[in-house]
Amino acid sequence: MKLLLAWPQLNEAHVETIQQETGAVLLRPADKDELPELVEHAEVIFGYIKPELLIRAVRCRWMQIPFAGVEKVLAVPWGNPDMFLTNGSGIFGPNIAEHVIGMMLAFNRGLHIARDYQHKRQWRWDEPYPFRELTDSVVGILGFGDIGQHVAQRLAAFGCRIIGFRTQPRGDEQYVEAVYRLDEVDNHLDKLDYVVCALPHTNKTVGFLNRARLAKMPKHAVVINVGRGSLIPEEDLYEALSQGVIAGAGLDVLPEEPLPADSRLWDLPNLILSPHNSGYTPYHADRALEIFLDNWQSFIRVGRPHRNVIDPEKWY
Amino acid sequence: MKLLLAWPQLNEAHVETIQQETGAVLLRPADKDELPELVEHAEVIFGYIKPELLIRAVRCRWMQIPFAGVEKVLAVPWGNPDMFLTNGSGIFGPNIAEHVIGMMLAFNRGLHIARDYQHKRQWRWDEPYPFRELTDSVVGILGFGDIGQHVAQRLAAFGCRIIGFRTQPRGDEQYVEAVYRLDEVDNHLDKLDYVVCALPHTNKTVGFLNRARLAKMPKHAVVINVGRGSLIPEEDLYEALSQGVIAGAGLDVLPEEPLPADSRLWDLPNLILSPHNSGYTPYHADRALEIFLDNWQSFIRVGRPHRNVIDPEKWY
Repeated sequence: MKLLLAWPQLNEAHVETIQQETGAVLLRPADKDELPELVEHAEVIFGYIKPELLIRAVRCRWMQIPFAGVEKVLAVPWGNPDMFLTNGSGIFGPNIAEHVIGMMLAFNRGLHIARDYQHKRQWRWDEPYPFRELTDSVVGILGFGDIGQHVAQRLAAFGCRIIGFRTQPRGDEQYVEAVYRLDEVDNHLDKLDYVVCALPHTNKTVGFLNRARLAKMPKHAVVINVGRGSLIPEEDLYEALSQGVIAGAGLDVLPEEPLPADSRLWDLPNLILSPHNSGYTPYHADRALEIFLDNWQSFIRVGRPHRNVIDPEKWY
Repeated sequence: MKLLLAWPQLNEAHVETIQQETGAVLLRPADKDELPELVEHAEVIFGYIKPELLIRAVRCRWMQIPFAGVEKVLAVPWGNPDMFLTNGSGIFGPNIAEHVIGMMLAFNRGLHIARDYQHKRQWRWDEPYPFRELTDSVVGILGFGDIGQHVAQRLAAFGCRIIGFRTQPRGDEQYVEAVYRLDEVDNHLDKLDYVVCALPHTNKTVGFLNRARLAKMPKHAVVINVGRGSLIPEEDLYEALSQGVIAGAGLDVLPEEPLPADSRLWDLPNLILSPHNSGYTPYHADRALEIFLDNWQSFIRVGRPHRNVIDPEKWY
């Protein structure tokens, strides 16, 4: 079995583990120029290659990517249309949950404002200072997969009441008062103090959190988005934040990335931005390797991976 | 019974509740000038008066303050040396825990750095970016009272391992692997990834977290202090942060407050500062009132409050 390793984050210890656990012939590109030819020989790919190279992956039966988003991979033709695609769902729950809650707490405690005053060497804060507390607040989580569950687990310890929304509620979700279908969210927006968005990019989520839905939230609502920037139309977001329709937003993903230097969003005082880095964690490679090796076992045994298998129709 | 209400945060609804629940004669100063005379008549004080006025509180049998720190009240002579003093312990656990964890997560996710880049309209971050994750990290909490317990409860949900330190371990502390006596901390500093300090100002805590103890921590350790600024000598703190003895600090309390504009601390890139506002919460008055009324019941029944009674010997 020829296994292409195409991920710079794998160190020698990881590669040695892979060698021992799989016994595969490892294809490792010495540089970028070697990659296209190796793609043609690979039967399995672990890592991430430019999507346009996938047309050359004619022998590839399974690709394990170490990230969550698959829309770019699904948007191009594959050399083997029957290739299994598995993603990194499960890697990012803990660190993205920390990113989400870090942004929520920055708003609650005014840490972003304190940062600005620190640079000015001023021991003060502006009144009225918007101190908030999570205790007893209602948090809606849009997209209640791995990330949503990790967020819920942690917020429950802050005394939050959690309501989940997902395409297909399962009934076994933990740390929630209830889980509703995503299309039922309109009936609940008016009671959400915080809205955490961890939805993938699909034809149903593009533009989902639009002007009309933002307007249904309380004026003190704070929206956090760590899913995909396409969820909230930029015009609607700017309007809601600049006109006080909602109290604030913390965004790790934007409609256009990188956010253009001339965007109006940078200067909004009630917007906290991070550069799509909520997925970074020191455990990334270790956790991706664990998923890959788990999938490898079933791939060898029954011919297909079993974990995080992407449905090309659903885009997740 | 003459009850002096000396706290601007009490609104009319609070006052009405107090009137109904206590039936006391309420003394309410119309302005600052009226206060000294009312202090002389008060049998109970709910609120906070300038410590130097306490010498005039000759009839006062009990004072309930709505804050935690008592060192300034204990440092002056009282008009009635037998007065009971109760503080606001229990009010601030949830919001200070949010402040603590907000600072920890700011470090983990680089939110303070992202804030700076947002102001520069730059979609980037500096390498090496110190992404961290709480999962499996060891957090030492110095001062395991109400605040420490609230911090521990929330951090446990992030997968942290908690070790508590307090003057007198009780054995019934929750969410901890162990609780040790404060003077045993030296045996554990080398395994603490985070050190959260929520100690009062006492003759045992002044200068406690000194150069020698900071040096025993791992180089990647992050120290958060929401107790009293006297805990860490400023010189030792500056040295540890500027020389990489520890990775960073989040401080809501400083040796000198307000921090002087010419302090060297403002510019340290691995220091996150807030202006002693971790105690602010929208629930402050409600929670203080609940403690006061609870104490009122026992004061009327047995002549003394029962909750948060300060021991003048211990200073907490």
